[in-house]
Amino acid sequence: MTLAETIALIEPLDAAAEARARAELDRKTKPRRSLGRLEDLAARVAAITGESSLSAAVVVAAGDHGVAAESVSAYPQEVTRQMLANFEGGGAAVCVLAREAGAALRVVDVGVGRPTGNIAAGPAMTRDEAESLLEQGIGEAGALVSGGSRVLVPGEMGIGNTTVASALAAVLLPAEPEAVCGRGTGLDDAGVARKVDVVRRALAVNDVDPRDPLGVLAALGGRELAFLSGLVLGAAAGRAVALLDGFISSTAALVAARLAPAAADSMIAAHRSPEPGHALVLDALGLTPLLDLELRLGEGSGAALALPLLRSALAILADMATFDSAGVTDAGR
Amino acid sequence: MTLAETIALIEPLDAAAEARARAELDRKTKPRRSLGRLEDLAARVAAITGESSLSAAVVVAAGDHGVAAESVSAYPQEVTRQMLANFEGGGAAVCVLAREAGAALRVVDVGVGRPTGNIAAGPAMTRDEAESLLEQGIGEAGALVSGGSRVLVPGEMGIGNTTVASALAAVLLPAEPEAVCGRGTGLDDAGVARKVDVVRRALAVNDVDPRDPLGVLAALGGRELAFLSGLVLGAAAGRAVALLDGFISSTAALVAARLAPAAADSMIAAHRSPEPGHALVLDALGLTPLLDLELRLGEGSGAALALPLLRSALAILADMATFDSAGVTDAGR
Repeated sequence: MTLAETIALIEPLDAAAEARARAELDRKTKPRRSLGRLEDLAARVAAITGESSLSAAVVVAAGDHGVAAESVSAYPQEVTRQMLANFEGGGAAVCVLAREAGAALRVVDVGVGRPTGNIAAGPAMTRDEAESLLEQGIGEAGALVSGGSRVLVPGEMGIGNTTVASALAAVLLPAEPEAVCGRGTGLDDAGVARKVDVVRRALAVNDVDPRDPLGVLAALGGRELAFLSGLVLGAAAGRAVALLDGFISSTAALVAARLAPAAADSMIAAHRSPEPGHALVLDALGLTPLLDLELRLGEGSGAALALPLLRSALAILADMATFDSAGVTDAGR
Repeated sequence: MTLAETIALIEPLDAAAEARARAELDRKTKPRRSLGRLEDLAARVAAITGESSLSAAVVVAAGDHGVAAESVSAYPQEVTRQMLANFEGGGAAVCVLAREAGAALRVVDVGVGRPTGNIAAGPAMTRDEAESLLEQGIGEAGALVSGGSRVLVPGEMGIGNTTVASALAAVLLPAEPEAVCGRGTGLDDAGVARKVDVVRRALAVNDVDPRDPLGVLAALGGRELAFLSGLVLGAAAGRAVALLDGFISSTAALVAARLAPAAADSMIAAHRSPEPGHALVLDALGLTPLLDLELRLGEGSGAALALPLLRSALAILADMATFDSAGVTDAGR
C-alpha cells in the first residue's frame, strides 16, 4: 500500500467501543475506577482494535548512520551488525523480554553496513528513499496485521540513532538541541556536548521545514526510523496498537503522527526513558507512559516489558465477574 | 513456628548473591545499567531468594471489622462475605490478574461475619489473638515456601480495613490521622472527615505504644492485617519475596518490619496507590514502587499486576547473551 493510501485509511477511534468497554468495567466487582489507568488502558485498546485478545509482534529495524563518524556514540559502528546477529540468535534483551511476554520478534535489516549520509554534512537520504522505507514499514505492518497481530512494537538498533532522533525531534517539536540530546548508550558530558553540536550543524546544513515531515525524515532520519514510522502508520491503518518503546521509537512515531495526526490515537506509550527528549516527544503525542523504570536500552525492550500490562487490562475487561453475576452489593450504582 | 522463632530466623540478605547478579548483568549485551530499575529488581530478587525461577502465590486474607459500624466505608459489611465467594469463584480482579501472571491464589477467612472490636470504642482484639493470627500467617507462608513458592503476595478483603490500616499507620509512622486517611473504596469529603475522626478516637481510647508493635496490632489491627503481617514475616524467614500491594498490605508489612526490621529487605513494593498513607508507609519501609497506575482496589491486585516485571527481570539475568558469548564489542569494559 502506498503512503498516501495508508494515511487516507487512518480514521478516528471507535468511540462507541470505548464507551461499551467503560460501561462494562463499571459493572465489574470493584469500586468504580478503582483499577485506575489499567481501566483506561483496557478501554483504549478496545477502541483501537475492537478485540479482546492481543497477539503481539516486536519488529526490530536496524540500520547504520553516517553521523556515527562524528563520535556521537559510546560504541563503534560495528556493534550494529554484531547486535543484528545477537537479535537473530535470541540473546539480546528484547529477545528475552519478547519471549517472556509471548510476543513474536521480527528483525529487519534496512541498512546495516550501508550508512546513511552524515546529517552533520548533508541529507541522510533522498525523499524517494524515505518514502520507500515508509512503505516498506507499512507493508511489514500490513503483513503482521493480516497474520493476526493486534499490537506492533517498533524496536530499533543503530549506533548513532539517538543523535538522529534528537535532530528529528528538534525540528518537529520544535526544541533546542540541548533539550533533546541525552547520554544515549552512555556518553559523558563532553560526548553530550559533541552531540548537541552535531545536531546544531545538522539543522544548519539541512534546510528543512517542519510542515513537511517527509522532507524532515529524508534529511535527518535514519533508515530504521523511516521504516518504523511506516510500521506505526500501518498499525494505525490496520487498527492495531502501536506500543511505543523509548526515545527513538517514539520519535519515529512522532514523524508518523505529523504525516497522519489520527495515527496518534492508536499509540500507547510503554515507558518513559531518562533521555530528555523522550518526555517531550510523548507530550507532543499526548501520551502518558505506563512504566517509568529508568530503562534506556531501546531495541523495543521497554515496550516488550509493558506488554503484560495490556494483556492484564484486557483480561480484566473479558474475565472479571460483574456485581450482578457474582451477587455482590453495588454501593456505587 | 512461633513468632519469636520466626523473627530469630530473619537474617540480612545475601550480599554476595546480589554482587554476583550485578556483575553478571554487567556482562550482558547492553550498555551498563541501561535496563535501570529492572536490573535492581533482578539483583534484589537474587539476593532474597538465591534462585532464578519465581513460583508465586497470592494469599487473600478476609476479615470483618467492628469499626464498619462507624460508616467509614462506601460499602456495607455484607460485601466482605460476598467478595469471599467471588474470590472462591475466580471472578474478582485479583483472581483474573493472578491467573494472567501464572500465580496461585489462596483465600483465607480469618474472621468474616465475626467482626473485631470497634477500634473507636476499644481494642480490636486481645494480644494473644493478634499473636495467634501472626503465627497463622507464618504457618501459611511456611507451607507455601515448602511447596516451592518464592514470591508471596499479601492480599486482603475487609470492609472498613483502610480505616484500620490508617490507625495502625498513624501510630507506627507516626503521622497525623489526616495524613493517612484517604477515600478508600470511594468516600466523599464528608466520609474522609468521618474516617479521620474515627481514627482520632481510636488513638485516644486505645493506649498504645509504637515501641510495642504487637500491642499496636492487637489494639488497632484487623484480623486479616495480623495474618498478613505474619505471612510477610514467614516470607522473610523462608527467603521468599514479599511483593506488597496497596496501603493495607503495605501497612501489614510495616507491622512486620517493626517486629523484625530485617524483614523489610525481603519486601518489594509493586505499586503506589492514591491512598495518601501508602507513600508514607513505603517511605518508612525504604521501598520505591514499581508501578504508579492509580490502582486503589487492594485484594493483592496491583501486586499480581506487577509480577511479570519480576519474571522479566530474572529472565534478563538468566537468559540474555553476554558480550563474550555473543561476540559483541564491549565499549564499557
